[in-house]
Amino acid sequence: MALTSTFPIQTIDDALSAFRTVRGQSIKLVSGLSDADATAQSMEDASPAKWHLAHTSWFFEEFIIAPLRGDEARFDPAFAYLFNSYYNAVGERHARPMRGLLTRPSLDEVLAYRGHVDAQMEGLIERDLDQVSDLLELGLSHEQQHQELLLTDILHLFAQNPLYPALRAPALEKQLEAKPLNWSKYRGGIVTIGHAGTAFAFDCETPAHEALIQPFELATRAITNGEWLQFMAAGGYSEPEHWLSDGFAAVQAERWEAPLYWQRDGESWTTMTLQGHQPVNMAAPVTHISFYEADAYASWAGARLPTEQEWEHAASSEDLNGNYAGSDTLHPQVQADENRTYMFGDVWEWTASAFRPYPGFKAASGAVGEYNGKFMSGQMVLRGGSCATPTGHMRATYRNFFAPDKRWQFSGLRLARDVD
Amino acid sequence: MALTSTFPIQTIDDALSAFRTVRGQSIKLVSGLSDADATAQSMEDASPAKWHLAHTSWFFEEFIIAPLRGDEARFDPAFAYLFNSYYNAVGERHARPMRGLLTRPSLDEVLAYRGHVDAQMEGLIERDLDQVSDLLELGLSHEQQHQELLLTDILHLFAQNPLYPALRAPALEKQLEAKPLNWSKYRGGIVTIGHAGTAFAFDCETPAHEALIQPFELATRAITNGEWLQFMAAGGYSEPEHWLSDGFAAVQAERWEAPLYWQRDGESWTTMTLQGHQPVNMAAPVTHISFYEADAYASWAGARLPTEQEWEHAASSEDLNGNYAGSDTLHPQVQADENRTYMFGDVWEWTASAFRPYPGFKAASGAVGEYNGKFMSGQMVLRGGSCATPTGHMRATYRNFFAPDKRWQFSGLRLARDVD
Amino acid sequence: MALTSTFPIQTIDDALSAFRTVRGQSIKLVSGLSDADATAQSMEDASPAKWHLAHTSWFFEEFIIAPLRGDEARFDPAFAYLFNSYYNAVGERHARPMRGLLTRPSLDEVLAYRGHVDAQMEGLIERDLDQVSDLLELGLSHEQQHQELLLTDILHLFAQNPLYPALRAPALEKQLEAKPLNWSKYRGGIVTIGHAGTAFAFDCETPAHEALIQPFELATRAITNGEWLQFMAAGGYSEPEHWLSDGFAAVQAERWEAPLYWQRDGESWTTMTLQGHQPVNMAAPVTHISFYEADAYASWAGARLPTEQEWEHAASSEDLNGNYAGSDTLHPQVQADENRTYMFGDVWEWTASAFRPYPGFKAASGAVGEYNGKFMSGQMVLRGGSCATPTGHMRATYRNFFAPDKRWQFSGLRLARDVD
Amino acid sequence: MALTSTFPIQTIDDALSAFRTVRGQSIKLVSGLSDADATAQSMEDASPAKWHLAHTSWFFEEFIIAPLRGDEARFDPAFAYLFNSYYNAVGERHARPMRGLLTRPSLDEVLAYRGHVDAQMEGLIERDLDQVSDLLELGLSHEQQHQELLLTDILHLFAQNPLYPALRAPALEKQLEAKPLNWSKYRGGIVTIGHAGTAFAFDCETPAHEALIQPFELATRAITNGEWLQFMAAGGYSEPEHWLSDGFAAVQAERWEAPLYWQRDGESWTTMTLQGHQPVNMAAPVTHISFYEADAYASWAGARLPTEQEWEHAASSEDLNGNYAGSDTLHPQVQADENRTYMFGDVWEWTASAFRPYPGFKAASGAVGEYNGKFMSGQMVLRGGSCATPTGHMRATYRNFFAPDKRWQFSGLRLARDVD
Repeated sequence: MALTSTFPIQTIDDALSAFRTVRGQSIKLVSGLSDADATAQSMEDASPAKWHLAHTSWFFEEFIIAPLRGDEARFDPAFAYLFNSYYNAVGERHARPMRGLLTRPSLDEVLAYRGHVDAQMEGLIERDLDQVSDLLELGLSHEQQHQELLLTDILHLFAQNPLYPALRAPALEKQLEAKPLNWSKYRGGIVTIGHAGTAFAFDCETPAHEALIQPFELATRAITNGEWLQFMAAGGYSEPEHWLSDGFAAVQAERWEAPLYWQRDGESWTTMTLQGHQPVNMAAPVTHISFYEADAYASWAGARLPTEQEWEHAASSEDLNGNYAGSDTLHPQVQADENRTYMFGDVWEWTASAFRPYPGFKAASGAVGEYNGKFMSGQMVLRGGSCATPTGHMRATYRNFFAPDKRWQFSGLRLARDVD
Repeated sequence: MALTSTFPIQTIDDALSAFRTVRGQSIKLVSGLSDADATAQSMEDASPAKWHLAHTSWFFEEFIIAPLRGDEARFDPAFAYLFNSYYNAVGERHARPMRGLLTRPSLDEVLAYRGHVDAQMEGLIERDLDQVSDLLELGLSHEQQHQELLLTDILHLFAQNPLYPALRAPALEKQLEAKPLNWSKYRGGIVTIGHAGTAFAFDCETPAHEALIQPFELATRAITNGEWLQFMAAGGYSEPEHWLSDGFAAVQAERWEAPLYWQRDGESWTTMTLQGHQPVNMAAPVTHISFYEADAYASWAGARLPTEQEWEHAASSEDLNGNYAGSDTLHPQVQADENRTYMFGDVWEWTASAFRPYPGFKAASGAVGEYNGKFMSGQMVLRGGSCATPTGHMRATYRNFFAPDKRWQFSGLRLARDVD
Repeated sequence: MALTSTFPIQTIDDALSAFRTVRGQSIKLVSGLSDADATAQSMEDASPAKWHLAHTSWFFEEFIIAPLRGDEARFDPAFAYLFNSYYNAVGERHARPMRGLLTRPSLDEVLAYRGHVDAQMEGLIERDLDQVSDLLELGLSHEQQHQELLLTDILHLFAQNPLYPALRAPALEKQLEAKPLNWSKYRGGIVTIGHAGTAFAFDCETPAHEALIQPFELATRAITNGEWLQFMAAGGYSEPEHWLSDGFAAVQAERWEAPLYWQRDGESWTTMTLQGHQPVNMAAPVTHISFYEADAYASWAGARLPTEQEWEHAASSEDLNGNYAGSDTLHPQVQADENRTYMFGDVWEWTASAFRPYPGFKAASGAVGEYNGKFMSGQMVLRGGSCATPTGHMRATYRNFFAPDKRWQFSGLRLARDVD
Repeated sequence: MALTSTFPIQTIDDALSAFRTVRGQSIKLVSGLSDADATAQSMEDASPAKWHLAHTSWFFEEFIIAPLRGDEARFDPAFAYLFNSYYNAVGERHARPMRGLLTRPSLDEVLAYRGHVDAQMEGLIERDLDQVSDLLELGLSHEQQHQELLLTDILHLFAQNPLYPALRAPALEKQLEAKPLNWSKYRGGIVTIGHAGTAFAFDCETPAHEALIQPFELATRAITNGEWLQFMAAGGYSEPEHWLSDGFAAVQAERWEAPLYWQRDGESWTTMTLQGHQPVNMAAPVTHISFYEADAYASWAGARLPTEQEWEHAASSEDLNGNYAGSDTLHPQVQADENRTYMFGDVWEWTASAFRPYPGFKAASGAVGEYNGKFMSGQMVLRGGSCATPTGHMRATYRNFFAPDKRWQFSGLRLARDVD
């Protein structure tokens, strides 16, 4: 039982439909944003919403439209410089920390740019689907990645504003109680890891290969805010005992004493969300924690984080009792969907694995070869998918990755432990 | 012959008229700006245009409206926190480097805030002019200062944008030739420095006091871009000989090799202006230079910068030939006005004087006492006024000040030398 | 054929002999150093020689002498604070970057401290060998680690001095030609990795466990300076194509254009060595390169770095032709020793593996549990051993680790590649 | 009544005697230092003792010996690079923050260097006194400046060491009570400021010129530690009200809450001195305070700092009652000397004046022209002299200067106030 990870684009109609769906979804995400909201950059790690909108369009223009239709088909030649993210092979680019100073082009101009790119792309899909389908699939998956970043970046921006703007109307979230934390047991042995077949996947998910794992247990759900509060109450942030050395240095340098966005409010805690400033829901999975925090929690709890191989195996296989791991979830949107496992859609789960190439990994040739391979140092793998991840973008083989001190993603943890 | 430095606000009609003129001028300045333009902050020294608009309104609200009408007359209590610049005595304030992240309130909301403050102020002027007139005058002068900063800050923001937006339509600037640089000679002796009388002046211009100066000569005009180019060609930025030690350290650390905004374009130079990207006008006064650069140029030219006392004396007195210093100017707007000396309206002129209190200086009591006194370290005095300084805001006793490495103001230099 | 990784300490005589040998070796290393040489700290990563001498003694005092003999057996109670490196569990410690300011105690006083600790330890060995043997073995291995660091740190210090002092008299190094680079081929399958048995090993080498490897080839020798020069000539440091993103950022930020210590001297290159300033020996293995550089070279050469599992397997097994990998070496001291493989003693070899815990890893209990486990993030594994590694300290299971940008160790690389 | 500011060097015997006295004094200062003590550099502002010894010798070699005797008379050509402080005109130099890494040459080698320079200089004094006398005087004054820095730098180094070494045996300091703080009154008018005549003075003390001062009062003694404690108890370091803006920013960034070196010890305070760690003597003048702190104290006390003109005038003139200012002192060494005023020898006194050129100032020609002029920005003037200033080096016209945040000198304050 695998998640459907990609879009059907075999026919022109399917391809047009997938293209319009994904592209339209980006527009929906920014519907509540002003020109200024879409322009500001709250930290170097984040990008303006406008930049996400433009960069995802540039990707189609740079890698599909310009090669096939020539540079004269570009909307504005300056945009190749402004909206290239990190592709050295396609030329110079605007400095990342300066993105928030691009008050021009305006949000409206960027939307016009999107319209231009959409028209060009639709023409190419209609006439040359065979030629464009591979990069089309990559471009749509790329845009979905940026849709999640757009949300986490807006949340970070709004969290800096003492007025705490909300992107969305607050939902009436029921303060459910979390289900008990149980354990799913798995046999060890040689398992297959990574992506095979013709469906779309990012290069870093390949090649599929065999890996050897030991018997292990995986928790049936992610750690909740309520459990995190116990860690805090037990001195979790003040004692170095359970921390990686770099982790505790970050705690002290950054004065971490709770997950990102949490604020003490007398006896209780509030946090910043896409629905504005809200009380912390104790039954919900903890999020906005770094790898260092996840690792320290696991150590404190007498457990550990799963490796990415263990995680992927559990996400694709029944446990010894014939159940799927993650049979409990706290995320309402996910609860409705009975045909899937519950390791997707709550929070990205930090694993114990450094983001390194799989055996036999080869980067794609050309500029898109810079997609993932060059980031394979200094980062840890996260698996699953969060409440901000677009539907259809999650799959068991997906390898998300961030540096171990980053906290602005919807990142949480699930415990694992050895079986004696 | 002194510039009129202030507004007639003795009658209600005059006061209303002055208030509306100054407040309206701020609105005119931002007429070409989008919400995003008005929100971005290009460096810590600069502030967003929206912030300037709001902060100058907050000044009236905080120091006049709230004391007289109570806190319930405030537009939004959160604004006291958001738009306080540096007044410790009136409470906590939002961190300066984070101003560019305030995408809310929007430009429209800030304009509404201005409207609210305007209505309140007009009511107070009509009913309580006596009570408000002193702080009204200060508030209007304060707003004029921010009008200039608003322009220099927008210029700095637009200069970071590879699209080089223009705030104004380019004027057809005639490439006139600069007049020859002549020298006006002045006697030494005891002179009166500083502001006296009842017209408005900032606290740092007081008290008027006697100072002893030696005989000196002052150049009849500011140094031009063409002359600056000669300094550059002579190795001005590469040889430490003429530089203050801190100055040459700045040259090397910041890799200065021309005034701020200059860009080499083959054999010639272009620069960023409020009219967009333009060729450097060789007959115009050099601007966007630091004190360090001004001082090095003067040393290279075998001269020196005038002290602020020399400058003020020359700006208020005839020289030995019965002429006013600065009888030549390069700024067209100033050329039209034959009734004034020409030391005002081209560029702010760096002086040799550190910004320190005058003998007998006392800061005002209360929060407005933080206006100037607490900045009296680490800064150099500039005199005159630039093309961005509001009409009616320049006067001979005016003391502008910036740290010696700052370049984003319209700052230039005029030479002085000793008389043997 | 495994290297003997540890000291025989089963009998009192053997234990005393091992203790005296290792402790005496530290003294020999500093024989050419002045008090000042032994005090200075050239960067935060490095420590003063005097500190290494004192810290390795503190280790015995803190973990063996004080627990058994009480605090009154300490040489000076202040030393517990001064010479603790990073053990949180045993209390506060002196800030690492300030180590170079400890001009007192002097080198002579530190030597007296060593004498005191030696006498105490010898007494304990004679009377309580059973009780101390485990920590004795750890303490001696710990001291050997610091012996290597002492040399790399002195080299770094001397390299900062324009007089380029030499620690040792220059040997007449023959400019031999490097042997051709050949490849040893290995089968894939399940192999045993890590340390088992009763001989000493660090905690991070345990537990021994099974790992699955794919068929691979390993170069018969390390990359030489001559080969590195070809990489440089091919634009190795100027083109981002083969670099990890963080790696190329380091190249640009640090302006790397050659290995650490290399200096251009007209057409040729010189480098700093423990024998002073010397011409680069083109046939010797390249050293003082970061992981980033090693990885970029491997990519440029159409190969890759070996994983630590591949490396360990090759270091302990015959290849398909019945040979040991690393049958060629360039290091004269190693050439003499025919009974060992040649993967040890030239340079530490960067691997493709992040330093993470082995499956089932448990840190030791108590303060020595901080030995390795807490550093298991942000670092890459190196295998083998360098010309500065003490004899008897190298073994096939040894996991050395440093951050990927560090260059001051004797670190080089050996290529690996997939077998199709 | 002026202090004798210089050495009689008109005859060869006098010159030899002056040379030997000053040079010998430097040797005495380092008599208690080890090679390591003399090598370490505790911060970028400070230099190693060994460097001071070598640099003052280099000054004679560079500006006197080499020009007259040729480069072959140099002790070691590398020293010109190692021991040049900041003279651009004489070539490249070793980076200031790296001075502490020069473990070679050793202290003994530097002493040999001094011996070599001494012999050369004595020969030149005997044969060519006329030719060398001006630079000899400058060189000796220069060495005296470094003698004071050597002491303040050693104190700073020793203060970083948790063992708190003492340079000197503690004197039995009597805990006298401070005399009451009285005020000396002075008339305003035109006074002569600066150095005239043939006796030695630094270039920045010239030219003598007229200045206009207003009537003022000057305190008869410096502020004591006991008075400073009252400032602290009154919230001196926690309320921004009396601080310059940059000053309070320093308080917060550096977490100042007492003078440098003070440590809370239960209810009382201790401090680091050249005699080691000692209780704070409440009757002694406060020292190791920055300009910012001095200025804040003066404001809190309802007074101000004197300008350097006021200070110099008071140090050279009787007050309206016919007394000399500073008729009280707390420094025992000074109390013995009844023939001098008491504004010298306790602490350097921060003035209200920025360090800027006097009217008509011209830097000397040649490399020694870099002596003072190029530091005339960003610094404040201190007057008087401290307990660490060599006898004979203090004079009424002397202008010492440091940046306003520096605290490691023996710097204190004396109050002034306007006369209505």
